[in-house]
Amino acid sequence: MHKAELQNLLDYVAIRQLNAKYNRYADQADGESYSSLFTEDAQFHIVGEGTYIGREQIAARCNATTTAVHVTTEPELDISGDTAQQRVRMLTVLQDGEGTRNEFVASGWYIDELKRTAEGWRYHHRRVELDLDINMVLEKVK
Amino acid sequence: MHKAELQNLLDYVAIRQLNAKYNRYADQADGESYSSLFTEDAQFHIVGEGTYIGREQIAARCNATTTAVHVTTEPELDISGDTAQQRVRMLTVLQDGEGTRNEFVASGWYIDELKRTAEGWRYHHRRVELDLDINMVLEKVK
Amino acid sequence: MHKAELQNLLDYVAIRQLNAKYNRYADQADGESYSSLFTEDAQFHIVGEGTYIGREQIAARCNATTTAVHVTTEPELDISGDTAQQRVRMLTVLQDGEGTRNEFVASGWYIDELKRTAEGWRYHHRRVELDLDINMVLEKVK
Repeated sequence: MHKAELQNLLDYVAIRQLNAKYNRYADQADGESYSSLFTEDAQFHIVGEGTYIGREQIAARCNATTTAVHVTTEPELDISGDTAQQRVRMLTVLQDGEGTRNEFVASGWYIDELKRTAEGWRYHHRRVELDLDINMVLEKVK
Repeated sequence: MHKAELQNLLDYVAIRQLNAKYNRYADQADGESYSSLFTEDAQFHIVGEGTYIGREQIAARCNATTTAVHVTTEPELDISGDTAQQRVRMLTVLQDGEGTRNEFVASGWYIDELKRTAEGWRYHHRRVELDLDINMVLEKVK
Repeated sequence: MHKAELQNLLDYVAIRQLNAKYNRYADQADGESYSSLFTEDAQFHIVGEGTYIGREQIAARCNATTTAVHVTTEPELDISGDTAQQRVRMLTVLQDGEGTRNEFVASGWYIDELKRTAEGWRYHHRRVELDLDINMVLEKVK
C-alpha cells in the first residue's frame, strides 16, 4: 500500500515539474526542447486555432510564438498506472523580450492526457482552451 | 516516522487538489459540487461582503458569481492530524463566458481551516480577503 | 531507495512552503522574517537594480517595498543532498494597502540556489529577473 501511495506522489511531482518545463520552453520559443515533452505521436490542439500532430509540427507551432509568458498553477491530476489526466488553469502574459511591454493577456485551461514513457511522463494529448477569443489573444501577443 | 511523513505528503497533495477543484467549480458557478467541498456546518466568510453558513447558503453564493476565474497558487499548509490550516494567495480574473472580455481583477488571500472527513479533506472555515475593495471587485465582475 | 524518494518529496514540499512564506513576508514588508529565509551569508540579486548581501541588507531591501504582491507558481526544482537549484515563475501585482488600487505589474523569474540548514531549507543565492524594465516596475509599485 505504501509503495503505491509513494509512487502516486512521485508521479504527481514529476508531472508538475513537466508543466514547469513546458512553460519555460514555451516562453523561450525553444521548439525542440518543448516538443520533447510530448510523446512522438502526440496531438496538441489549440481550440479555435488548429491541431498539431507529432513533434515536428508541435515544435514549429512553439517557435512561432515568441512573446508569451506561460503560467500554470494548481492542477487537478488523476494518475492511474501509466496514464494520467490533467486539467490545469493557465494564465498568459505578454513579454516583448526588450522589457518595454509586459501585460496580462488571458486565462485558460490545459486539458491533458499524459503517458509514462521510458523518458518519464509526456503529454500525449494536450488541449488549450482560452477564456478570450483566440484571435483577440493572438492579436495581443503579436 | 516514515509513515507519518508519507501521510503528511498525501494530505498536502490532497488539499492542493481540493483547492484545484474549488477553483474550477467556482469558475463554473456549480454551487452543488462547490458546496460539497465544505463540511456540512462550514462557514464561508467574504470580508466586507457577508458570511455564508452551511452548504445551502454556500452553494447559493457560488451560483451568484458567474464571471470570475479563480486562481490559487503556493499555499502555506500546516497539517496536524485531522485538521489543517491553510493560507493561500489567490488571483481573480474576469471572464464573460463569450470570449470577449478577460481581464485581471484582483489579488487576495484564502485563509482556511480544514477538516479530514470520511469523504476526504473539506473546508470547515474559509475566509476570503481581497486586496481591492470588495465593491470595486464586484463592480468589475458583474 | 524508497527512503531517498521520500526524502526528495519532503524536500520538494518544504521548498514550496518556503516560497509561500517568502511571498507573504515580502507582501507584508516584514524584513526580519523575510531575511530569516536566507542563509546568513546569502546574496539577493535584483537584476538591473542591485545586490544585497547578508540578512541585514536583505531585510532592509524588503522593508523598502510595501506595495507589491508576490506570486510564485510551478517551480523547476533540482534537489541533490543538501543543496537545491530552483527556477520559478513569478508575477507581481500592485496593492496600495487601502483597497483602492490592485493591478498586474510584471512577470519575472526567481533563479535560486538553496541550502539545507539546521533551520530547514534557506535561499543561499536568489536572483530576480523581471520581464519588464526594472525602472518601469519600480515606477508602477511606488
